[in-house]
Amino acid sequence: MTRRKPVGIAVIGGGRAGRVHARNFRYHIPDAALAAIVDTDPHTAAEAAQELELERAWTDVDAVLEDPAVDGVVITTPTFTHEELAVKAARAGKHILCEKPMALTLAAADRMIAAAREAGVHLQMAFMRRFSPEFRAARQQIHEGTIGELMQVRSLTRGPGLPPPWAWDESLSLGMVAEVNSHDFDAVRWLTGREFTRIYAEAACLKARHVLNEQPAFYDNIIVTARLEGGVLVTIDGSCPVEYGYDARMEILGTRGVLFVGDVRSMATGVVTREQGLVQPNFSSWRDRFREGYLAEDRHFVDCILGRATPEVTGEDGRRALEAALAAIQSLRTGRPVDLPMAVQGDATGDVA
Amino acid sequence: MTRRKPVGIAVIGGGRAGRVHARNFRYHIPDAALAAIVDTDPHTAAEAAQELELERAWTDVDAVLEDPAVDGVVITTPTFTHEELAVKAARAGKHILCEKPMALTLAAADRMIAAAREAGVHLQMAFMRRFSPEFRAARQQIHEGTIGELMQVRSLTRGPGLPPPWAWDESLSLGMVAEVNSHDFDAVRWLTGREFTRIYAEAACLKARHVLNEQPAFYDNIIVTARLEGGVLVTIDGSCPVEYGYDARMEILGTRGVLFVGDVRSMATGVVTREQGLVQPNFSSWRDRFREGYLAEDRHFVDCILGRATPEVTGEDGRRALEAALAAIQSLRTGRPVDLPMAVQGDATGDVA
Amino acid sequence: MTRRKPVGIAVIGGGRAGRVHARNFRYHIPDAALAAIVDTDPHTAAEAAQELELERAWTDVDAVLEDPAVDGVVITTPTFTHEELAVKAARAGKHILCEKPMALTLAAADRMIAAAREAGVHLQMAFMRRFSPEFRAARQQIHEGTIGELMQVRSLTRGPGLPPPWAWDESLSLGMVAEVNSHDFDAVRWLTGREFTRIYAEAACLKARHVLNEQPAFYDNIIVTARLEGGVLVTIDGSCPVEYGYDARMEILGTRGVLFVGDVRSMATGVVTREQGLVQPNFSSWRDRFREGYLAEDRHFVDCILGRATPEVTGEDGRRALEAALAAIQSLRTGRPVDLPMAVQGDATGDVA
Amino acid sequence: MTRRKPVGIAVIGGGRAGRVHARNFRYHIPDAALAAIVDTDPHTAAEAAQELELERAWTDVDAVLEDPAVDGVVITTPTFTHEELAVKAARAGKHILCEKPMALTLAAADRMIAAAREAGVHLQMAFMRRFSPEFRAARQQIHEGTIGELMQVRSLTRGPGLPPPWAWDESLSLGMVAEVNSHDFDAVRWLTGREFTRIYAEAACLKARHVLNEQPAFYDNIIVTARLEGGVLVTIDGSCPVEYGYDARMEILGTRGVLFVGDVRSMATGVVTREQGLVQPNFSSWRDRFREGYLAEDRHFVDCILGRATPEVTGEDGRRALEAALAAIQSLRTGRPVDLPMAVQGDATGDVA
Repeated sequence: MTRRKPVGIAVIGGGRAGRVHARNFRYHIPDAALAAIVDTDPHTAAEAAQELELERAWTDVDAVLEDPAVDGVVITTPTFTHEELAVKAARAGKHILCEKPMALTLAAADRMIAAAREAGVHLQMAFMRRFSPEFRAARQQIHEGTIGELMQVRSLTRGPGLPPPWAWDESLSLGMVAEVNSHDFDAVRWLTGREFTRIYAEAACLKARHVLNEQPAFYDNIIVTARLEGGVLVTIDGSCPVEYGYDARMEILGTRGVLFVGDVRSMATGVVTREQGLVQPNFSSWRDRFREGYLAEDRHFVDCILGRATPEVTGEDGRRALEAALAAIQSLRTGRPVDLPMAVQGDATGDVA
Repeated sequence: MTRRKPVGIAVIGGGRAGRVHARNFRYHIPDAALAAIVDTDPHTAAEAAQELELERAWTDVDAVLEDPAVDGVVITTPTFTHEELAVKAARAGKHILCEKPMALTLAAADRMIAAAREAGVHLQMAFMRRFSPEFRAARQQIHEGTIGELMQVRSLTRGPGLPPPWAWDESLSLGMVAEVNSHDFDAVRWLTGREFTRIYAEAACLKARHVLNEQPAFYDNIIVTARLEGGVLVTIDGSCPVEYGYDARMEILGTRGVLFVGDVRSMATGVVTREQGLVQPNFSSWRDRFREGYLAEDRHFVDCILGRATPEVTGEDGRRALEAALAAIQSLRTGRPVDLPMAVQGDATGDVA
Repeated sequence: MTRRKPVGIAVIGGGRAGRVHARNFRYHIPDAALAAIVDTDPHTAAEAAQELELERAWTDVDAVLEDPAVDGVVITTPTFTHEELAVKAARAGKHILCEKPMALTLAAADRMIAAAREAGVHLQMAFMRRFSPEFRAARQQIHEGTIGELMQVRSLTRGPGLPPPWAWDESLSLGMVAEVNSHDFDAVRWLTGREFTRIYAEAACLKARHVLNEQPAFYDNIIVTARLEGGVLVTIDGSCPVEYGYDARMEILGTRGVLFVGDVRSMATGVVTREQGLVQPNFSSWRDRFREGYLAEDRHFVDCILGRATPEVTGEDGRRALEAALAAIQSLRTGRPVDLPMAVQGDATGDVA
Repeated sequence: MTRRKPVGIAVIGGGRAGRVHARNFRYHIPDAALAAIVDTDPHTAAEAAQELELERAWTDVDAVLEDPAVDGVVITTPTFTHEELAVKAARAGKHILCEKPMALTLAAADRMIAAAREAGVHLQMAFMRRFSPEFRAARQQIHEGTIGELMQVRSLTRGPGLPPPWAWDESLSLGMVAEVNSHDFDAVRWLTGREFTRIYAEAACLKARHVLNEQPAFYDNIIVTARLEGGVLVTIDGSCPVEYGYDARMEILGTRGVLFVGDVRSMATGVVTREQGLVQPNFSSWRDRFREGYLAEDRHFVDCILGRATPEVTGEDGRRALEAALAAIQSLRTGRPVDLPMAVQGDATGDVA
């Protein structure tokens, strides 16, 4: 039998996240073909090409964006490049799947949304938790009223890796609350159907203390306390790097019950010995923890390009998560809670006063 | 063989907490004898006496405090009575086990501590989590460095019961953050060995909304964000009443790993059916959840009276938990974080500015 | 207030099981007094007395049995002594709590039952699983029909200790299937309300191979396959010694669902580290695993003596468990399944043909 | 970029198992193309084609076997057809992935193995547990000595569906012990690296009693007790249909510890309510339980055809599992344990004496 011509996808950024997406399009989605994985660093580009068993490497992003074999792009490069790449891709008529955080400022996010709208392309945000089976099941249960009216939400993300040095610079990255906890902000909004109205944050640098020499404002632990519309209370915590692995869990308390989402355990095995007790494997990486989520997210992107679906996670969602992160950053700076929505402040100093 | 003469214990307050303690002295601790359970309400006193299979009921607290057969008292009455009862008991030479919160003000707590010191009696605070096996094991693991240096702590308490109407009045009670979360404040201090330095709180009334008609400041959900000495971050949340049962858990994150304490599950059974999936029983009451903790706490009180031990939980501990609760209350009123230690403000308005 | 005179209990046998019972009567049951813990070995007797903070040691069983301060005895000595001690105790008018297995032969068990009946004393078998909260909850759920009609039962017991050398001799002990799996045979009968009708067993010596030099028939692993009335299928497995700890679990399959009883985990704590994954403590000893069960069993014995209750586990129950163990032993010898009930064969060779 | 020409796979049998495999080749493995799903029943063929979004339906197996676009076939038809289809496919030069049980007799299995060998094609058995991540991790741990020397193994399989009426006839099917527990026999061999030496079985019909009217020998519950080389003890139990879902778990006991494989829980979510306690979803179907295993198995088949791998599960493995099932059947008939290896008896009466 004949198979329909696969959708051509180019991944921009040859790092870890880029390769996760690229593997999906290359090996797991017959409806897609990996057209390119491009990185401006020739070494990274070559390594990515080899890992993915491609015939050549790509370092010229503009050439890839002009390639007619490319139907959509996945932006996995550092945050400060998102706006330029997304706008270019939109103008080249390419659909966009953009990694988080969306951009450095709300103004930039607005420009990305506008560019996609004008070009008539999809702008999908890469919040893969929305595609992870247990998060979807949890949302279904909330909607069915299993736990009653929502009262409290707790969401946490912890990961093993120290962010790369470029990300320590707040003019290039928005720090952990955006790089890591963007997923929590989005998941809270998506699961509750409510927007943030107030955010307070406390942070500390307790593990990677050597970074303080270069960036005195650096932190590796954060707790964000928030209110949602209707008074629902939220706590989000992040820690990165943690040594024990990757961890993403939620707990949602309602008037009738409590709902747990996620588990530290990665696999249904266990060993009991006298020395240890019961030992069960935990997740060591987000690649394993959200393998299904990433794959479903990438399939969804392909389905949207094929016209079978419309994006479940939009640029507007990316902007909302960004706004929450910016509010947390402002709270850290001022020592005060911050009310939302925030005003768009322009780009010079970010959106943070 | 002969058995030593049991220590005489009187329980003041015939409510639920009082009866839990009374049952321990009556049925589970051969070294103790329940000398009385006294309540100023004759109906409650009679009911308690019957439940405990006692020959008579007691309503006269002063008579009990003067009874030479009484070596120690357990104070389980409403918060606003603690100071007077503790001071009286101390002056009568009785050892004291006092339920939380210790008092309404720091000044009152200081007077209780002083009275016990002057009388040379023990003043033990009833933070039974410190006597619960899993909390003790957790503390041991922290001290052994299993999870490395501490970075974050989460503690939560949720309970099924709406507080009694007297407790809605802030001049008689300090509300949920003191009545319920006192245990969390103490457990955090005890497990980490660190004091609170800053506290921020958000609260909402989301379930028992009818109480708002009588007490507009009433809340049934709270999230407290805090810092400890050394920058350790803390989040404590409380919710009361919750419908699903009683729940008390902690999660402590360190540089090397994470430690969980407590479980919603009450028993090692499970049933799988098509309609439900895997179903396991949860705790419905603090009486079951902390049965072992209460018993060990009461044994400890007896052992202290017998001179075999010295109190592991002191009046100073009670005062520290109270201070944290007062700071949370002040944060709720001002919408700002509150630094600790707080100044003693006198009694007229509580310690809260 | 006055407390009623405690019931006097003597524990016969100063070993581990004897001390577990003795501690309960000594420290945890105000209605009981530990009158003696007696062992014919002076060293053991002295050690037990010291551990239990008694004023003297006892080595003369007969004297203890004649002591009017003794209302009941707990028999915790080796199996081959049970019959003589139980008959003597009955004739002395003492109530009896007898450890498993009941005796070496069905004829001996019958004589014990007759002696107790004639003397009008209670003969309670020490099947403590019946008093363990999770086993009781499981039985309740089965009776309520939660899992429908029963189809299969699995029960297992594994323990850390190599049996003492006297127990390697089959003329003094009936081996692991009786010493250890008696609990499983009883629990299966009790939970299902059905008797065994056929038993097949396979055994092997896979760990304590050095014992084979002395006792070529020794085994440390066994799997018993059985049928109950109505065709319900059963598998019971035992292993002793195992290195990892103590383990007792059941799984009951019914037409509507499956029911799990017991857990390897001993406490609601867990630690996650990179090196280990999630680690949770397991039970290392039956003393911890069935602490509540032993205490409730001993309370029940006291309550029966006080006339507040009648024994829930009788001599007849002990005889049934013994019969199942004897059938398994016969199956091991013949390589064939054995039908029950078995004929009483007299004592010369045990009841095993 | 160009993608290599996909391997053509035809699935023989349009039932549930056939469609699971077909979906993998159709939607999840870019290196494969689903060339056909063929069923002799036109209705089933049409339904399968529609479900898989194919342009046409196939009912002519011979035509498919002759199609040069077909590189390999997956045999998912009833057991009694396996031999003829496998031999035909081998002679047509097609690689074979064969569902369990392999055949009705050992003689037939031998002929299938010979045909594949002569034709130089792969004959892979569809024991997908070997490709399920938790089973692979368990095997790795056993090989690393985590639990020491093996002593006991327990394996169970329970499934929701009553077998189709054709399978009640023992001349067409070998019943549950082969249809269902083949997976257990294989998993035990694979995890332990040991062969079965003795098998005893007990069975009963306790749920689908109406089938007894047509097939008096029908059973829906079985417990198999076995010995492996070296004396390792095994118990395998099966139950089908069970109402609660699909369940496949193992427990392996070694001298140093115990290893658990599999879980009833299907997803990392949980809800606690007062009415139910903690509720977590369980697997309702083997399609969900072994989704990853089926996909990895099918990928492995493609990789073998592409010369990247050699089959990890061979015809010899299929024959061994069949032999164990036949021994269990003989034990049921004779009421006696059966020693292995069994003699090949020819086909007239099966291999069962």
